[in-house]
Amino acid sequence: MTAADKVILVDWGASCLRAYLCRQGQQRLQILDTAVGPGVAKAERQFEAILTSVIAHWRAEYGCLPVMMSGHIGSNLGWHEAPYVYCPVSPVDVAGHSVSFSAGGHRVYVIPGVCCADDSQHLDVMRGEEIHVLGWLQLAQEHTKGKHLLCLPGTHTKWVLVEDGLIRMVKTAITGELFELLSERSVLVQQRSDEIDQQVFSMAARLTLESENGQFVHGLFGVRTLQILGKLTPWQATSYLSGLLIGSDVRAAIMAQEWQLDELDSLVLIGRRPLCELFETTMKIKNLPVVCIDDQETCISGYSAIYRAVLS
Amino acid sequence: MTAADKVILVDWGASCLRAYLCRQGQQRLQILDTAVGPGVAKAERQFEAILTSVIAHWRAEYGCLPVMMSGHIGSNLGWHEAPYVYCPVSPVDVAGHSVSFSAGGHRVYVIPGVCCADDSQHLDVMRGEEIHVLGWLQLAQEHTKGKHLLCLPGTHTKWVLVEDGLIRMVKTAITGELFELLSERSVLVQQRSDEIDQQVFSMAARLTLESENGQFVHGLFGVRTLQILGKLTPWQATSYLSGLLIGSDVRAAIMAQEWQLDELDSLVLIGRRPLCELFETTMKIKNLPVVCIDDQETCISGYSAIYRAVLS
Repeated sequence: MTAADKVILVDWGASCLRAYLCRQGQQRLQILDTAVGPGVAKAERQFEAILTSVIAHWRAEYGCLPVMMSGHIGSNLGWHEAPYVYCPVSPVDVAGHSVSFSAGGHRVYVIPGVCCADDSQHLDVMRGEEIHVLGWLQLAQEHTKGKHLLCLPGTHTKWVLVEDGLIRMVKTAITGELFELLSERSVLVQQRSDEIDQQVFSMAARLTLESENGQFVHGLFGVRTLQILGKLTPWQATSYLSGLLIGSDVRAAIMAQEWQLDELDSLVLIGRRPLCELFETTMKIKNLPVVCIDDQETCISGYSAIYRAVLS
Repeated sequence: MTAADKVILVDWGASCLRAYLCRQGQQRLQILDTAVGPGVAKAERQFEAILTSVIAHWRAEYGCLPVMMSGHIGSNLGWHEAPYVYCPVSPVDVAGHSVSFSAGGHRVYVIPGVCCADDSQHLDVMRGEEIHVLGWLQLAQEHTKGKHLLCLPGTHTKWVLVEDGLIRMVKTAITGELFELLSERSVLVQQRSDEIDQQVFSMAARLTLESENGQFVHGLFGVRTLQILGKLTPWQATSYLSGLLIGSDVRAAIMAQEWQLDELDSLVLIGRRPLCELFETTMKIKNLPVVCIDDQETCISGYSAIYRAVLS
């Protein structure tokens, strides 16, 4: 492999493709330009044509730059499958298992996902989030020592246990997907509102945080009952639903048998506002000390480490 | 009111209208004919036109028979609102609060739903299920004494606590609606199968029955993980999802603070196969002694009692 001054990063998930043209900086990569395209689910397997089209103007200017990709594109429903790497594993080693191939003159590297299957009691997977975990590890020396729980909210919340620089365990909650389905297509919400009523959100989060989540499938109907009885306005219903779901997600992490929160050296939220703020609000109800980091920072930091390991 | 030899019953829910032409028998009503039509959600508020069209042939033969209706049609999204009657209440008294009006020459009675709002900790509602509760009460003298928990599975599972012939409490779980959304529109199931794999169903039901349901939002992703790791075939995924959801619903009833299962005189399932069988299988994993009754029987039995009370 040859060192390159510039590189293209592609976060190609199920619902969206995000591409970054980057230049090698002193410490890490620097974003020069960005582009977007259709996700894997909408690509109809025209992966090469889509990629070529999305990065065409960068190619015209800089030629055939190397491309590093992560996310759903490496799954068995994607372009070239990059088989999962098993926990416990260091995120740099994950990158070392990248699958490489040539497409339209570009050298393409697909970073594999991580699989957690050390016993039959706990099986789980992630793809794409390993970049952020790696990025977070690069941010401070103390991150590579001790036990840390990283929470990455999104369509699926990924809870990642990191110990002495290794990914130990992944746990997924389909909180975001449930929220989309229930707010768009259920009887619970007639009129979705994107404005969050903080008080209503916290009230609902407290409910599922405090009660055994055995009450969860029963509790959801409360979104409708409270509207029928005039205790919740239709536009507050979305906030209430969001609170119930995120409260339930955080409670499950508090009650998890796979880790003890009081044994952790830190609890970290990685993502974008306002979603991260909702998780932060919920964690603070239980007095959990949490640090929030923007996922653009962990993304670039993670890819910078991969760039050094794989391409330099 | 005048006694009538024949009557039309209409179970008009959100998704479907089911009409029955009945004749007064010695003990109870007997079904002579049935008809179906669009539910309230699809009716575009053309309620009178739909009803008249659905029962047109009965009218041609027998004239303007009285019509008794229950379900979503009596809600604030329906035709004529029949305000909820509050728990604790006897189901016959619920029928006594029916709203009556004239439509196309027919006398129409809308049976109200039941609302449970005796304290701020527990609010819930049902519409339509009160007919089945009344019907079950009619089936045996001992049903009107002691404490019984009735489970009515469907789009929403209704758990109804009946004590000494009164409806004490209603609890709703949106299990069926979650199943529809997650099996049709989520990443969990790619190819829905209507054939249940009993072993896979029971394995999943056991999981949510045995673990705190705090694990529920985390556990759901298992439907996908197990397929990725080759431990579940795509056509088994539906059974697995169904097991997780019904297990979670039953566990919440077992853990409910509103009743103690060991203080009940009976636990009763009212509904149709195969859905009731899945709930029965799940309850039997926990050795719960349960009796199953077909909801057509409770429906006719309930309406017979209302017919005697309201129309005779």
